[in-house]
Amino acid sequence: MTAITRADCLAADRADALAAFRRRFRLPRGVTYLDGNSLGALPAATAPRVRAVIETEWGRDLIRSWNRHGWVTLPGRLGDKIARLIGAAPGEVVVTDSVSVNLFKLLAAALGLRPGRRVILSDRSNFPTDLYIAQGLARLLDDRAEMRVVEEAEIAASMGTDTAVVMLTQVDYRSGRLHDLTGLTRRARAAGALILWDLAHSAGALPLDLNKADVDLAVGCGYKYLNGGPGAPAFLFVARRHQALLAPALTGWFGHAEPFAFDSKYRPAPGIARLLCGTPPVLGMAALEVGVDLSLEADLASVRAKSIALTERFIALVEQWCPGHFDLVSPRDPDQRGSQVSLAHPAGYAIVQALIARGIIPDFRAPDILRFGFAPLYTRHIDVWNAVRHLRAVMDGNEWDRPEHHRRQMVT
Amino acid sequence: MTAITRADCLAADRADALAAFRRRFRLPRGVTYLDGNSLGALPAATAPRVRAVIETEWGRDLIRSWNRHGWVTLPGRLGDKIARLIGAAPGEVVVTDSVSVNLFKLLAAALGLRPGRRVILSDRSNFPTDLYIAQGLARLLDDRAEMRVVEEAEIAASMGTDTAVVMLTQVDYRSGRLHDLTGLTRRARAAGALILWDLAHSAGALPLDLNKADVDLAVGCGYKYLNGGPGAPAFLFVARRHQALLAPALTGWFGHAEPFAFDSKYRPAPGIARLLCGTPPVLGMAALEVGVDLSLEADLASVRAKSIALTERFIALVEQWCPGHFDLVSPRDPDQRGSQVSLAHPAGYAIVQALIARGIIPDFRAPDILRFGFAPLYTRHIDVWNAVRHLRAVMDGNEWDRPEHHRRQMVT
Repeated sequence: MTAITRADCLAADRADALAAFRRRFRLPRGVTYLDGNSLGALPAATAPRVRAVIETEWGRDLIRSWNRHGWVTLPGRLGDKIARLIGAAPGEVVVTDSVSVNLFKLLAAALGLRPGRRVILSDRSNFPTDLYIAQGLARLLDDRAEMRVVEEAEIAASMGTDTAVVMLTQVDYRSGRLHDLTGLTRRARAAGALILWDLAHSAGALPLDLNKADVDLAVGCGYKYLNGGPGAPAFLFVARRHQALLAPALTGWFGHAEPFAFDSKYRPAPGIARLLCGTPPVLGMAALEVGVDLSLEADLASVRAKSIALTERFIALVEQWCPGHFDLVSPRDPDQRGSQVSLAHPAGYAIVQALIARGIIPDFRAPDILRFGFAPLYTRHIDVWNAVRHLRAVMDGNEWDRPEHHRRQMVT
Repeated sequence: MTAITRADCLAADRADALAAFRRRFRLPRGVTYLDGNSLGALPAATAPRVRAVIETEWGRDLIRSWNRHGWVTLPGRLGDKIARLIGAAPGEVVVTDSVSVNLFKLLAAALGLRPGRRVILSDRSNFPTDLYIAQGLARLLDDRAEMRVVEEAEIAASMGTDTAVVMLTQVDYRSGRLHDLTGLTRRARAAGALILWDLAHSAGALPLDLNKADVDLAVGCGYKYLNGGPGAPAFLFVARRHQALLAPALTGWFGHAEPFAFDSKYRPAPGIARLLCGTPPVLGMAALEVGVDLSLEADLASVRAKSIALTERFIALVEQWCPGHFDLVSPRDPDQRGSQVSLAHPAGYAIVQALIARGIIPDFRAPDILRFGFAPLYTRHIDVWNAVRHLRAVMDGNEWDRPEHHRRQMVT
């Protein structure tokens, strides 16, 4: 195989159909950002938009903005926009709360939809908050629910007559492995179970068609590939066929059929709105809407094609410039890979710190994983080149083996 | 009694020790805002602060801000600031989620702390979301919990050996009645029950000393008297004596002892942090911090004194200018009243709309209540004068009896 050159990377960027999107983001100079899978970059339109919401909607129009600026319908309107990114219909998605809280809501609801079945099935390598939330719910419900975790490869075979709901993250946060959403959804349905997909690392990064795959339930994150900002509100999806039957556990006033009737008895809203809970976080939703609007402008098939090109190039360059240093944790087959590449190294933490000191920003996931995320709307081929050149330099000089790179920080 | 004059109001404003705070808010011209108990006004410092968080912390420093700008510790640091406003100690308050979600967390935890008791006791006139959340939890827990609502006057007598937790809102959202927090807390303790206070209409409006009163649990709202913006994150309080025993129900990763160890088993954080759940909403917290900082600059005894002066003057002016038109729903005794005055009138909705058309903004609460809120940091005595003069004009001309004022809006 011919070696990849810097010129190849620059040529690929010139040919990139998505190249114009990068100018829609405010990216700091001197930084190569490969952590958009943890916190998406700042869209250029966000600060002006949030300022307008603060100064005009909140400051000038005050309480009237619930009607005048449609704050009250924003969770559904923004949900409908996200629906277009994930292959859902209008009225099947709302923006609300966090991924964790939404997981709780949907797992509790799923158990209610499958009476006589008590198992929440997940894989051991699922993202911790998904596992924790299910553990907490099972503990709360005592003998009416059981959390069962199995190895990833055993998921399909473990779906049985006691499985109420299968909870999986489409793209594994650590390895970047892409689960077979369609096949596992079909398998769950055959077992009589519901399936709940966590789309944290897939929404905005690849084309999705939840309804074509007959997915029952899903949650997703606003602050990764949707670029909604730190701690942005999350979203949830409930297939329309389940909505009227679903009994919410977190029965807050915004999920009431008539919140402003101030009834003392809870009556669920007719549709997806019953999954809302407290007062919607308007500032967070305003920022998220800017990110979602950007994603809606892009063709997700092109996003996926570029994502694959970037991850393929990264793997090839690591093999070219750092042979023998790292184990590839992510699948080699791009069809089984999300928009990230994970490498393992015993000194992973310190290597990541040394890269950050050089302006290359991936992240570290315990115990030994260097995680490089590629956000096709703003990551360039030349960024991939720079990242691997610096990785080589860090390894060549044992640069990571300095005390300051071993100092543990709170968030890694 | 001598009639109150406009000059009296202007003189009271000149003598107001809190007068300087009004300039710290951005209030629209031509508007008399008496709905700060629903949505607090915009502090002048909020837009620049949020802009800095967006542009510098998110945009420039990206993922590094979790450490560099202390995003990861913000829920606790901001909680410690709120603790100073409500008589709690550092480490007893966190900012997280919504009031509704926090009620669910604390009610579920309270039931766990009182095994063998299954009743959640509340008053029929409590805010709907409080009642709904308890109903939803009781439904979820089936025969392990029961929601019991009684009339306000019967609360104390209804606390019994089956009461696990008493849930009350200190200031009734409809009547403005101020519950006897100290007495009812003592009574709950004598009954062996825990008490959970909703401080939505009191935090920032009056002095509070939760620890002096031996309160067990509390929640509060960020977007009313704390001026945190629409849908601002909420806060919760757990007395230190309960923290180590408390088993969270919403076991998200930010409540884990070591979120960034990525363990697959949930282990609660040692203190109040175990009540956190998902990733903290950084933009919302940044806006809230500005409002909280403003409240910390004010002496809450002065805030309460001005609040009483404003509500007393409002009642007197309504009696002076609109005799016979309205029933006073709020207690006449200021010691039993929060920072609002509620009037009842069969045409309440239309009268509120007519006032809004004149630039006077109170709000309406079904079925017949006109609710006037007084935020001592920015409400003046002349605002009270203007509001009642316009109220008189609306009543004199039957101005409310126009079709456009009867048109129902989504949010009232």
